Amino acid sequence: MKRIVHIVTALFCTGAVLQAQRPPSPVSPEVHTDNTVTFRYYSRNAGQVSLSGEFLSGRQPMTKDTSGVWSITVGPVKPDIYPYSFWVDSVLLADPNNTLIFANERFKRSIVDIPGTTPLVHSWQNVPHGKISYRIYNSATLGTPRPLLVYTPHCFDTTGKTKSPVLYLIHGGSDTEETWTKVGRANFIADNLIAQGKAKPMIIVMPYGNVRPAPTPDFTKDMINDIVPYVEANYPVVKDSKHRAVAGFSVGGGQTLNIGLTNPDKFAWICSYAPFTGTEEFQKNFGDYQPDADKLNKQLKLFSISVGTEDFLYESVKKNIAFFGEKKIQVKSFIVPGGHTWMNCKLFLATSLEQLFKE
Amino acid sequence: MKRIVHIVTALFCTGAVLQAQRPPSPVSPEVHTDNTVTFRYYSRNAGQVSLSGEFLSGRQPMTKDTSGVWSITVGPVKPDIYPYSFWVDSVLLADPNNTLIFANERFKRSIVDIPGTTPLVHSWQNVPHGKISYRIYNSATLGTPRPLLVYTPHCFDTTGKTKSPVLYLIHGGSDTEETWTKVGRANFIADNLIAQGKAKPMIIVMPYGNVRPAPTPDFTKDMINDIVPYVEANYPVVKDSKHRAVAGFSVGGGQTLNIGLTNPDKFAWICSYAPFTGTEEFQKNFGDYQPDADKLNKQLKLFSISVGTEDFLYESVKKNIAFFGEKKIQVKSFIVPGGHTWMNCKLFLATSLEQLFKE
Repeated sequence: MKRIVHIVTALFCTGAVLQAQRPPSPVSPEVHTDNTVTFRYYSRNAGQVSLSGEFLSGRQPMTKDTSGVWSITVGPVKPDIYPYSFWVDSVLLADPNNTLIFANERFKRSIVDIPGTTPLVHSWQNVPHGKISYRIYNSATLGTPRPLLVYTPHCFDTTGKTKSPVLYLIHGGSDTEETWTKVGRANFIADNLIAQGKAKPMIIVMPYGNVRPAPTPDFTKDMINDIVPYVEANYPVVKDSKHRAVAGFSVGGGQTLNIGLTNPDKFAWICSYAPFTGTEEFQKNFGDYQPDADKLNKQLKLFSISVGTEDFLYESVKKNIAFFGEKKIQVKSFIVPGGHTWMNCKLFLATSLEQLFKE
Repeated sequence: MKRIVHIVTALFCTGAVLQAQRPPSPVSPEVHTDNTVTFRYYSRNAGQVSLSGEFLSGRQPMTKDTSGVWSITVGPVKPDIYPYSFWVDSVLLADPNNTLIFANERFKRSIVDIPGTTPLVHSWQNVPHGKISYRIYNSATLGTPRPLLVYTPHCFDTTGKTKSPVLYLIHGGSDTEETWTKVGRANFIADNLIAQGKAKPMIIVMPYGNVRPAPTPDFTKDMINDIVPYVEANYPVVKDSKHRAVAGFSVGGGQTLNIGLTNPDKFAWICSYAPFTGTEEFQKNFGDYQPDADKLNKQLKLFSISVGTEDFLYESVKKNIAFFGEKKIQVKSFIVPGGHTWMNCKLFLATSLEQLFKE
């Protein structure tokens, strides 16, 4: 296996000024054309370095060469985007030579993109690209400025005054407002499906959903009283329930159920991905839930719950689906292989985007 | 000192489903009202944990409590935004509990924002906010799609068709297109100075400047042939040299000199921050540079070079300033205390923004 040292090292070492103390910077990850991947980490002092990734079961030990670079080649790996980390002795850390970072408040993982030969729905493709705007709104509910990301499709710029439908898309607990783009590639998924005519052009709003100590009730208020009005004041959007969707993953999937089902006059499209529903607010709202199912089914254009069969929430989500079914609410379940992962999130989102705002 | 454990831990542990294996997640960093800062890191197994930060000289050892949380309180620290890392035994890593990450290709550092009591020029202030758009252009020069960020000021949205001047702002070597916003807070600096009437409203384009193996000549071509045309095709901007500026830090400061001085018909404003000029291309273009100084001085509205006296490039930059002075080019030098840091980058940018596009 060829060892490749980042060329920038040479630049800094041969330049007129030498910035000392920089350790070698091996290329990592290196994705090969056969879908095998080489990971590298430099350390002269570590006793053990291993790789942990969502394409592996368990940690895989890496081996050190004489220059202090630890490496491992794994796979071939099924093309997708996966989180991974290094264990260096007892320390778990992101790959220092990879700028693709899993946006999260509690851990630092890197992500590796294995593109394969056929472009995937989340891959960069040579189609017109929308843009992601980083914005700040003042939340009166939470008493603080908060970030949100807004995807606008390519045609939003070129056609000017068309009014768009809006998907409000919420990350998982401890993720951030960047996770749906940095890990979930929501923008590329939308670019590709819109270019192929499979999804309606839409705005996608990705707020920061973490609110402590009570993530669900306060965020529901923030969504209804602050986020939606902010978006509708700043973008040309259609302001009715048929042109508003809410979707989210994990804790965000629980927030989605809460936001959508307690506000069916505002959201006609509800897509919950692997929802975490073990919150007090969920119990409060749905513990003795007695909806007018006929009315609700007329209000909702789509109510779907998605989950993977190896998800640690699978049994819980199956109970959610059964619960809403018993209440005579039309719920579309989408059960696929896989775990509580962002690989599945991308699939769930792509599936929703092909359904939303069509009638 | 009070030990604070992130409340989300409680959520996950008391929920109906328990996601095991999550380590405790202490609050870190915690900035106190007296500008002292507490940093925390959880590890039961580490032998030594220490803090390394640009507000400290050398590593400071942290101490472990009985729950396995290592901590240190430092300061008071002068309000600013600083990079820092933890050393855990022999491993240098970013703070796993801090989402503010230094965008860089070769290291992972966290950043801590010490706001102080008087809002700083880079602080969030309650003024109208512009937005940052993440975009992709196809570089014919480099044969690949490349990312860039575009800051548009608040008034850009509200006034519609006003044509703007554009600042092209380049990061340092091994930084990324996100470093000027994530670390340099270019957007907040612009928001604040525009709101105060101190800076002209302008678009700021932050491209990805790393091109290997030759960062300067190829990026200059990319800027002239791809980036500027992309921006001018997609934004309502004034297309003449008096309404184009180029600025950059370190390797980006060297690129700035190259882009600006080899294209004075295209850029009338050149602001180079702590330039790294030890590249072959710089020697090629400026080794026996014999400009028509009179003509150049008429073309350029501003040519400034900024550096800190403790910058490892200080002597080199002083030579650059002297060199251009000997060629009778009017160069404005801006020499301040401090090193080759993003604390100084923010100051350099704020200073430039008050100068640009004014006559």
